[in-house]
Amino acid sequence: MLTKKIVKYIQSLSQKKLRDKEDAFIAEGPKVVEEFLLSGVFDCKIICADPAWLLTNDQLLKKSFGEIYESDEDSLKKISLLKTANKVVGVFNKREVKNDLLFDNKITLLLDDISDPGNMGSIIRIADWFAVANIVCSDNCVDCYNPKVVQATMGSLGRVNIIYTDIKVFLLNQRSINVYAATLSGTKLAKVGTVKEGFILIGNESRGISEELLSLSKNHITIPRYGNAESLNAAVATGIILSHVTADLS
Amino acid sequence: MLTKKIVKYIQSLSQKKLRDKEDAFIAEGPKVVEEFLLSGVFDCKIICADPAWLLTNDQLLKKSFGEIYESDEDSLKKISLLKTANKVVGVFNKREVKNDLLFDNKITLLLDDISDPGNMGSIIRIADWFAVANIVCSDNCVDCYNPKVVQATMGSLGRVNIIYTDIKVFLLNQRSINVYAATLSGTKLAKVGTVKEGFILIGNESRGISEELLSLSKNHITIPRYGNAESLNAAVATGIILSHVTADLS
Repeated sequence: MLTKKIVKYIQSLSQKKLRDKEDAFIAEGPKVVEEFLLSGVFDCKIICADPAWLLTNDQLLKKSFGEIYESDEDSLKKISLLKTANKVVGVFNKREVKNDLLFDNKITLLLDDISDPGNMGSIIRIADWFAVANIVCSDNCVDCYNPKVVQATMGSLGRVNIIYTDIKVFLLNQRSINVYAATLSGTKLAKVGTVKEGFILIGNESRGISEELLSLSKNHITIPRYGNAESLNAAVATGIILSHVTADLS
Repeated sequence: MLTKKIVKYIQSLSQKKLRDKEDAFIAEGPKVVEEFLLSGVFDCKIICADPAWLLTNDQLLKKSFGEIYESDEDSLKKISLLKTANKVVGVFNKREVKNDLLFDNKITLLLDDISDPGNMGSIIRIADWFAVANIVCSDNCVDCYNPKVVQATMGSLGRVNIIYTDIKVFLLNQRSINVYAATLSGTKLAKVGTVKEGFILIGNESRGISEELLSLSKNHITIPRYGNAESLNAAVATGIILSHVTADLS
């Protein structure tokens, strides 16, 4: 039975501080939970679901060593962070952060203070689409285990390595790899060729990229604007740039 | 003073039925409201704002013939549809739908049942960035005056013509213009050249483009996937395609 204690524990994981302490996070909804269970990337700690979902996913749950709680609509509503509660909520252990990532011969995304969870989730999903294996986030980026981020990644969270660090220090240690900073006044994208190795640097939604990081970026690239919108959404810009620099012209 | 009647009226505009009846919609937040007042594209009916916002925007309000209500935090909370109430909420009249739009010599977006308000708003903003003047939506697309859409357009709503119609009938009347349908198994984007005139057709977030419309599309185009994400967000895909087909290579 889903006790008050467990409900309280799950609710507590909406806070980063407690996610860090517990090394755990929440995933909601059939799509994301099923994908996580199937891939086995994240160890499952708890599954709370309605009877119908538990029945349908019987086989999948045999793979999991988590506690399973059959839950009614009211309980699911209590633990859900979404407006419309889902059929299933899972608690998973975070992945171990890999410290031996290599950045040569590949494209890596660098995110400077991306603050919107929807954008962060979208960017992780886009990285997964274009086979970008690693994302390096500045320490002020929104937590990739924030429930809204997890939701927006649509399962891609398990397929991309994400590290949080001081990007300036990081770049100073990676001087041999070119940085391509997305700015409003750089080389227009059509003039930038295919990139086989490089860091694509995306800035904060309102402030853009910090001066400090811009000065470490050899290439400034721009998505030309023909109309009047003030800006493009950070995730959309990431998608456009990745699509262009990964284009296989053969 | 902000009477109960007015609060009720504003709240009612969260429903499409009543927006249609009143020919009016809600815009929230300084950015969007100020942009609408400044551009004058939408006639302003009502402004509810805190004293500080009213003072700062004194000049801007002289342009408006709407009713102005100084509102405290509690009242703003009542009429706001956002979790965190804004300093200002405006009610504007919808624009007249232009029936004499021309589609030759330009790129036009066709949206087949886009249902997520965030996506619709993003797509309108992207269209504005790439100077796409017209968006043709299927009748089942989310209403462009839905408050969440208005919010996500960041002011671009006033700069793009949006019409709702039966896209099949529409296309049968526009046979001379090429259709480029975004699918998962078409010509890869890098092989598609610059497009000076054409319809870019984007499908529903989960179902994609209907068979009926696909059969009317001469060109099927695809954003190549190198990784494992199941799909790209509809707005991100729109941005990638528009960036590619509008690329000025000179």
